[in-house]
Amino acid sequence: MVNISTNPDGRPIATSGPVLVIGSGLLGASAALALRAAHIDVYLDDTSPTSLALARDLGAGIPLGKESLQPSLVIVAVPPDVTAQCVIRALENYPTAVVTDVASVKKLVIEEVLDSGIDAGRYVSSHPMAGRERSGAAAADRDLFIGRPWVVIPHPHSNDEARLRVRELAIDMGAFVAELDAQEHDEAVALISHVPQLVSSLLAARLHDASDDALALVGQGLRDTTRIAASDPRLWTSIVSGNCGPVVSVLRKFKDDLDTLIAGLQSGASRGFGAEGSVGAINAVIDSGNDGVARIPGKHGGAPRRWGIVEVLVPDKPGELGRLFSELGAIGINIEDLTLDHSAHQKVGSARLMVDPTRAREAEIELEARGWRIVSH
Amino acid sequence: MVNISTNPDGRPIATSGPVLVIGSGLLGASAALALRAAHIDVYLDDTSPTSLALARDLGAGIPLGKESLQPSLVIVAVPPDVTAQCVIRALENYPTAVVTDVASVKKLVIEEVLDSGIDAGRYVSSHPMAGRERSGAAAADRDLFIGRPWVVIPHPHSNDEARLRVRELAIDMGAFVAELDAQEHDEAVALISHVPQLVSSLLAARLHDASDDALALVGQGLRDTTRIAASDPRLWTSIVSGNCGPVVSVLRKFKDDLDTLIAGLQSGASRGFGAEGSVGAINAVIDSGNDGVARIPGKHGGAPRRWGIVEVLVPDKPGELGRLFSELGAIGINIEDLTLDHSAHQKVGSARLMVDPTRAREAEIELEARGWRIVSH
Repeated sequence: MVNISTNPDGRPIATSGPVLVIGSGLLGASAALALRAAHIDVYLDDTSPTSLALARDLGAGIPLGKESLQPSLVIVAVPPDVTAQCVIRALENYPTAVVTDVASVKKLVIEEVLDSGIDAGRYVSSHPMAGRERSGAAAADRDLFIGRPWVVIPHPHSNDEARLRVRELAIDMGAFVAELDAQEHDEAVALISHVPQLVSSLLAARLHDASDDALALVGQGLRDTTRIAASDPRLWTSIVSGNCGPVVSVLRKFKDDLDTLIAGLQSGASRGFGAEGSVGAINAVIDSGNDGVARIPGKHGGAPRRWGIVEVLVPDKPGELGRLFSELGAIGINIEDLTLDHSAHQKVGSARLMVDPTRAREAEIELEARGWRIVSH
Repeated sequence: MVNISTNPDGRPIATSGPVLVIGSGLLGASAALALRAAHIDVYLDDTSPTSLALARDLGAGIPLGKESLQPSLVIVAVPPDVTAQCVIRALENYPTAVVTDVASVKKLVIEEVLDSGIDAGRYVSSHPMAGRERSGAAAADRDLFIGRPWVVIPHPHSNDEARLRVRELAIDMGAFVAELDAQEHDEAVALISHVPQLVSSLLAARLHDASDDALALVGQGLRDTTRIAASDPRLWTSIVSGNCGPVVSVLRKFKDDLDTLIAGLQSGASRGFGAEGSVGAINAVIDSGNDGVARIPGKHGGAPRRWGIVEVLVPDKPGELGRLFSELGAIGINIEDLTLDHSAHQKVGSARLMVDPTRAREAEIELEARGWRIVSH
């Protein structure tokens, strides 16, 4: 572990302490660890003494005692359904502190704070879009936010200083800032996060009916589409239940398309290949899927970009991937992304390397010269 | 390129020539290339002279001329909707040959062959479960079938010799054999392949409505669930239209679950966090998704197995992944699978390495000693 007093981009840390982190789960403890690594005084509060002690033992900060603390910043990192009450108490108890929260749904939370009638100028909500399959302080990681979006969501009465302080916090954690209003945020996460989670779970649920013979044939497509179906039910129930409106609105459109598809397929079920209704319905679905997936931006937030793909067969034994990657390093070619394709009983894997398209051919030639078997594209 | 006269498992090739491959698309040309590499005489036929010439130029075999050929094996690799007619003609034209086809739907094809009244004892249908995003001979690859399932589907009148020859073909191609009847096959692929494709496309289609702000927040979950939405509409339309019955049957159950979810969420939309109907409905979906995804077998077709996960931060520059993998190789640890997690504006990637769970801790210690930053789990 290296102590840093600059953020991961090398900029000096702007956040100053003391900082009070309320809630010592994954997000709270991760932020606390990152602040501690920058030598900022961090105090912790949690309704669970056990969680609090665990976060303290991990080095995330000092449990809040009876002493009178005047933090300059309060980070509320508790479940979405209790976030607003926690924010209101923080604004009351710490009359000079900027207050933010990190809940993953925003409209309900901010409305509840504003409806309480409290002067909420020092409050700016936010949502670091980072997470992992495990939760709790034990899963905390001071690098959790590096390179991730951190959405800052001011409300109409937020003051400029508070807004600046929360933006600085996000940058200090290594995240990049996006600013949205609460409605935009909730609609965005419904579409890109909550609905994909639910659809993946609904798809995986169908495997209850699968025979062992069918499961033995599973390939990479099903594995990819159902990976996030392994996520934590308790966490996702709390997230989605706080964003029902936007989620239902996306799911209804999904269901309309599904109904149209089913109707088309039913017309084909009794008529065999090429029945008129079925062909049109299937083609429309796959076609619009093509268009939709093409809208996902490439890495580094730029416009969609096609990487050159170099596909290499890799024997399934220690060191082979290492040799492949170090030889690519020697050639001077950066791997932008990669997928490994295995299937049952396979003794050779296929590594699909995404590289600068202007250098893909060179990579193939150089690797082939070094004895790798290239799968031509 | 190395010539082989053993299959990829090191066994001698059992298939003997001459082999006639009808259809020079991805599957036909790939099988032909693999047979040619084993020094087997391969003849090619295709309704398109251009496709045929391309396959010939790629070294896949000799275009069928006017001479009288008596192949010992005919592989029909044409689109599903014309497969049965092609099989019937092959049985008529080559009275001593074993005939198989590689179409990805089976019941309609086999029924059409048997309904024609022809003596079909020499016919055993099959389905190599291999493919790629691109189609046509230009995308062909003699290694396409290595480690993939190749489903063999005899009908009640198939003779033993034909069944054996088709099983041998699959093994010679490096595939492993699964034997199912046509109904079982079509239901299995509906569940594990056709429905996941359609659901992924339906999900990706929702991105039409996404703002650029929302798209900038996209993470790995949406990328994984929509990767196969980039697949070829023409190919998938022909596949799914030949399997409407089983696909509709799975989609209807999916839709029932979706309807229940939407009804639950609607009860929550106006009532905020924790509304009774919404919480139960969301939890049920995520929970059954957990159970379903747990049924997917691990690598090598064994029982589901948890890999140890080692997560390492990797700077985004040439050679770093190479250094990581070659150091793992030096430690003697095999990488069973891995994911790279990038997001917009990220200067550091996170590599999640799946390794033997008994060696995960050792890998972390050794890598940390070599200066890597480990993300603790």
